[in-house]
Amino acid sequence: MGTTQLETVPEPKYWHLKTVLSEALDSEFSVGEILPNERDLAARFGVARATLRQALEQLELEGRLQRRRGVGTTVAPPRVGVAVGTEQHVWPGAPGDAWQPVDCARTAVPAAVADALGTGRDEPVHTVRRSRTTHGRPVAAELLYVPSASVPDLSAIDTPSGPARARAVLRELQRLELEGRESAVELGSARADDARELDRLPGAPVLVVTTRYIADGRVAALSVATYRADTCRLTFGDSGGVEIHHGPHSRAS
Amino acid sequence: MGTTQLETVPEPKYWHLKTVLSEALDSEFSVGEILPNERDLAARFGVARATLRQALEQLELEGRLQRRRGVGTTVAPPRVGVAVGTEQHVWPGAPGDAWQPVDCARTAVPAAVADALGTGRDEPVHTVRRSRTTHGRPVAAELLYVPSASVPDLSAIDTPSGPARARAVLRELQRLELEGRESAVELGSARADDARELDRLPGAPVLVVTTRYIADGRVAALSVATYRADTCRLTFGDSGGVEIHHGPHSRAS
Repeated sequence: MGTTQLETVPEPKYWHLKTVLSEALDSEFSVGEILPNERDLAARFGVARATLRQALEQLELEGRLQRRRGVGTTVAPPRVGVAVGTEQHVWPGAPGDAWQPVDCARTAVPAAVADALGTGRDEPVHTVRRSRTTHGRPVAAELLYVPSASVPDLSAIDTPSGPARARAVLRELQRLELEGRESAVELGSARADDARELDRLPGAPVLVVTTRYIADGRVAALSVATYRADTCRLTFGDSGGVEIHHGPHSRAS
Repeated sequence: MGTTQLETVPEPKYWHLKTVLSEALDSEFSVGEILPNERDLAARFGVARATLRQALEQLELEGRLQRRRGVGTTVAPPRVGVAVGTEQHVWPGAPGDAWQPVDCARTAVPAAVADALGTGRDEPVHTVRRSRTTHGRPVAAELLYVPSASVPDLSAIDTPSGPARARAVLRELQRLELEGRESAVELGSARADDARELDRLPGAPVLVVTTRYIADGRVAALSVATYRADTCRLTFGDSGGVEIHHGPHSRAS
């Protein structure tokens, strides 16, 4: 892991240390390997433990390290690329959709959701919960809000909730002509229910992707999808069908 | 701000408190307004200060609050929507580009960048630094890596660095036929130089957008753009030209 002394470097010490550690992770450690303890690492690089801890926190934020209670600090696997928003004219639930319906209920929604949908603040909305897994592990949880006006022919006498109901709502949605969609991604914190589903603590950093599905010139459905920020890279855009060689890591920072 | 007592709620207290506070921010506070101090807030909601602090941290992560030393906790303005990746077949630096060239140098690059570009690990690469502002404030900083092979006709006798050099590199890049591009967004931490440019502390959470520009079946340029996670929502996809009404807030979670 080299023996660079960091005493004379002008930039913040933890920053330079982070870079040195990052290179060491690439060259000397394999995924899942446990790092030496903090005292040993600090001694090796000639830095205070506070400095080391700052550098480790940065590497955790960047998805390079995982700190797990009772295990220690391990080298994280590369983040998984998860495609979002590549198909412009497909409704949720169309064939090939990566999301699995979990549940559905008619509930009151947050004020901001009601405003975005143009529904009344107290008007119940079909709320479909879906989950997304990659390599068998949960990577994202979604709430898909569908106003009654978007699914007018949905039968009220079918099962009122559960995955079957979710599929019925999605099926009805396909009847509308999708005119386009707009997505946005931002930093957020995991709600308690999402956190449980994603195997994280409530409040863990997540990437929140909000998508407005537009039909008849209005928002016909609104999706709020929560992706694990520690394990996911969200990919979008298209490569024009060109296959390119990706490096050994998909990281590039 | 209501007087809801939170003692009997089954979900984590800070979580419910966060929701209650969030609603209060919408209805009773205006942007920039300073919140009452922690002791008063904790008393008002009948919670411990540790609980209050957890809720405030969540709201900060979600971009609802800003905590500034010497000022206190203020209500943050809504995040600004910043478009990324909407134009599939336009090179960086094309007319209408939101980015401003700042500098250019020929430098060694991180190993992951060299791998993505398919250049040798020690081969210098044209590194264009650009910045992006919205409403006069910096929102993002970019490093655009361009291998010499992508700009073979770039004259070596022009100015070796600076914005003029950056523009020359971008101009040469336009000569290639762009076949497509692939983008990914992930959570990261601000490098010292980006942090300075974005008026943040090194290590602050940022959204990192990596874009591979593809020409002749290979990566002809690689952009690593760092957006402030506290003030930005990244928007992508297209709405099919449909104008829709956005609610008073663009938030929807």
